[in-house]
Amino acid sequence: MIYADNAATTCVSEAARRAMMAAMETTWGNPSSLYTFGQQAEEALSQARAQIAGCLNAQPGELIFTSGGSEADNQALRSAARAGARKGKKHLISTKFEHHAILHTLRALEAEGFEVTLLDVHEDGLVRPAELQAALRPDTALVSVMFANNEIGTIQPIAELAAICRAAGVLFHTDAVQAVGHLPIDVKALNVDMLSFSAHKFHGPKGVGALYVRRGVPLSSFIEGGAQERGKRAGTENLPGVAGMAAALTEACRCLEQNAAYVAGLRDRLIQGLSRVPHAALNGAASPRLPGNVNFCFEGIEGESLLLLLDEKGIAASSGSACTSGSLDPSHVLLAIGRPHEVAHGSLRLTLNEENTQADVDEILRAVPQVVGYLREISPVWDELQKGEKQYVIQ
Amino acid sequence: MIYADNAATTCVSEAARRAMMAAMETTWGNPSSLYTFGQQAEEALSQARAQIAGCLNAQPGELIFTSGGSEADNQALRSAARAGARKGKKHLISTKFEHHAILHTLRALEAEGFEVTLLDVHEDGLVRPAELQAALRPDTALVSVMFANNEIGTIQPIAELAAICRAAGVLFHTDAVQAVGHLPIDVKALNVDMLSFSAHKFHGPKGVGALYVRRGVPLSSFIEGGAQERGKRAGTENLPGVAGMAAALTEACRCLEQNAAYVAGLRDRLIQGLSRVPHAALNGAASPRLPGNVNFCFEGIEGESLLLLLDEKGIAASSGSACTSGSLDPSHVLLAIGRPHEVAHGSLRLTLNEENTQADVDEILRAVPQVVGYLREISPVWDELQKGEKQYVIQ
Repeated sequence: MIYADNAATTCVSEAARRAMMAAMETTWGNPSSLYTFGQQAEEALSQARAQIAGCLNAQPGELIFTSGGSEADNQALRSAARAGARKGKKHLISTKFEHHAILHTLRALEAEGFEVTLLDVHEDGLVRPAELQAALRPDTALVSVMFANNEIGTIQPIAELAAICRAAGVLFHTDAVQAVGHLPIDVKALNVDMLSFSAHKFHGPKGVGALYVRRGVPLSSFIEGGAQERGKRAGTENLPGVAGMAAALTEACRCLEQNAAYVAGLRDRLIQGLSRVPHAALNGAASPRLPGNVNFCFEGIEGESLLLLLDEKGIAASSGSACTSGSLDPSHVLLAIGRPHEVAHGSLRLTLNEENTQADVDEILRAVPQVVGYLREISPVWDELQKGEKQYVIQ
Repeated sequence: MIYADNAATTCVSEAARRAMMAAMETTWGNPSSLYTFGQQAEEALSQARAQIAGCLNAQPGELIFTSGGSEADNQALRSAARAGARKGKKHLISTKFEHHAILHTLRALEAEGFEVTLLDVHEDGLVRPAELQAALRPDTALVSVMFANNEIGTIQPIAELAAICRAAGVLFHTDAVQAVGHLPIDVKALNVDMLSFSAHKFHGPKGVGALYVRRGVPLSSFIEGGAQERGKRAGTENLPGVAGMAAALTEACRCLEQNAAYVAGLRDRLIQGLSRVPHAALNGAASPRLPGNVNFCFEGIEGESLLLLLDEKGIAASSGSACTSGSLDPSHVLLAIGRPHEVAHGSLRLTLNEENTQADVDEILRAVPQVVGYLREISPVWDELQKGEKQYVIQ
């Protein structure tokens, strides 16, 4: 199999598996227990916390461990909304191409009386700082803009957006689920107030993630109960998961530059190769873009059929996010960057990492044009386009 | 080490660890992905779901996987409260000795305009069905009563309480975190609408649990985002965690009767032996009680000192729940069953399971009276009690 869906999930690294097994075999005590055996688990948890914090230039006390990116996003938004409401600030700003963990939470908050502004994302897949500046209001409680988009991989000017919010005294959160472990991240330099991430996107285990919360930023708990995580996240601490995340992130950050350079090389070859397919176009700007992200629209075909035929050839790819697969609606991300419905349906996301090879790229570059060609042959839409009965959207 | 704190957490069984490793090594794809490799993960998830459902006589589609018992409790309460509010029903009933995942969520709901009635728990550690019947109102949206208490182990008449609610058309939820894997549970026979549980209490991994929701009971999502778990719980499915939970629960249920009989034997010897300590008393009735739970108050001493000295002797025990350790307040559970503050402070919880031995019980029965004796020697309160300057509460 050629696995080219690393934005959906990644394999668990050996280091992460080893750390998890060690935690399950030797430090399985409850970290909140007072006896030595519990305190050994607490020490292991502290060590993992310090390790993870170190990778992001955060303080250990600024991390709240969660069950993953979605929970971290939910907590960040609900907490900021609650803090804002207390001061009469009930306006929230985000963007049209966020992950559903953000968009659906915002929709729920809207139903609870908050007002939401979603910034446009331009054809290049980027948010414009000037538009954020213009959208800020005296009653804005929070701005949340994703670090790198999960479908098209474009990287937002987070430091610039955060600076605008800092100057205006507005909290700034970023969903960095696709960025952590893949891009250098220094929360202090970025000036973000909150940042979400998830272990399984960088070779860590599923079911664990974290929310970075800058010291001094008010945080309310989302899951209520015991006093774990300084009273901000109830539930017995998942030490094996956190230890796995620490091992994976440490490894990812140690090799970040060389991996990014290598993977970007694969990406650029893929983009170059796929650009030769007629009436095909890269979604979002080629740069700034996640090292491993390639996302194309092929006019005249259905993305789902493309995936299934690629799967038959042993290539695992997706049309968009795994969180929305099964849905018949076209990607909200592609619509946000201005792709019309019929073109957005013909999308292919290939997300590579350092385990992919040049041979994988060769194979993908053989298979995709072939499958696209075949699907176009049997596509009535393509027929109409060819006969000039319909206009091409992608030239 | 003699580990006697199995209510706080349990060691991860070999079967559970093997299942997790298999899921991490071979089926690490994203279960929501459409290609074969993702669908293999989805099949493994379905299989684990069916296995877990089978252990509880539930349908696979009636389980929502969560990050643990606390999240499941939060979701159950918030969902039922929301469904009730839509019909103008804003009254919630629970008990005074629930886990904080319930009590703190109720407190939050109270702040949002719900009215909460907390039923009394009597000296025997049991809720009275007649008192639940009397507390029901036309606007009651939900009743939540824990299956077996996490501190004193008393088992509530769940079927009876659920029947009262069913007859009144009120939703019934039970926090069965301490019960699942330790007591026979048949959700259909019990007639419960929702039931929470957590894997690490029965030799499964930390960071995973589930909420059983009877078919037809409305459930709203708690973590918003992707469409996982039929749109009721966002976040990439934690297949390794769920597979570990399935393996652990299957094993626990297969050996349930013989384990329960064996552990109850150890428990009864411990209760008998500790009852010989002067001015000591079992908290809650001896029966119906979790097979592994022993909880005593020793007059004139501090529970925390007792734990630390037992720890020095290699015995891991607790004074109450690990979720609240570090807190200086006496246990709300012991206060709920009528223990006065000064006595509630001198509590010791020993929770055994099938890995404990008769030799462990012998050792505990040697150590505890010795340590209690020593602490009483240096206790000014004990001195006053001995001199008759103060009255004993426990005769």
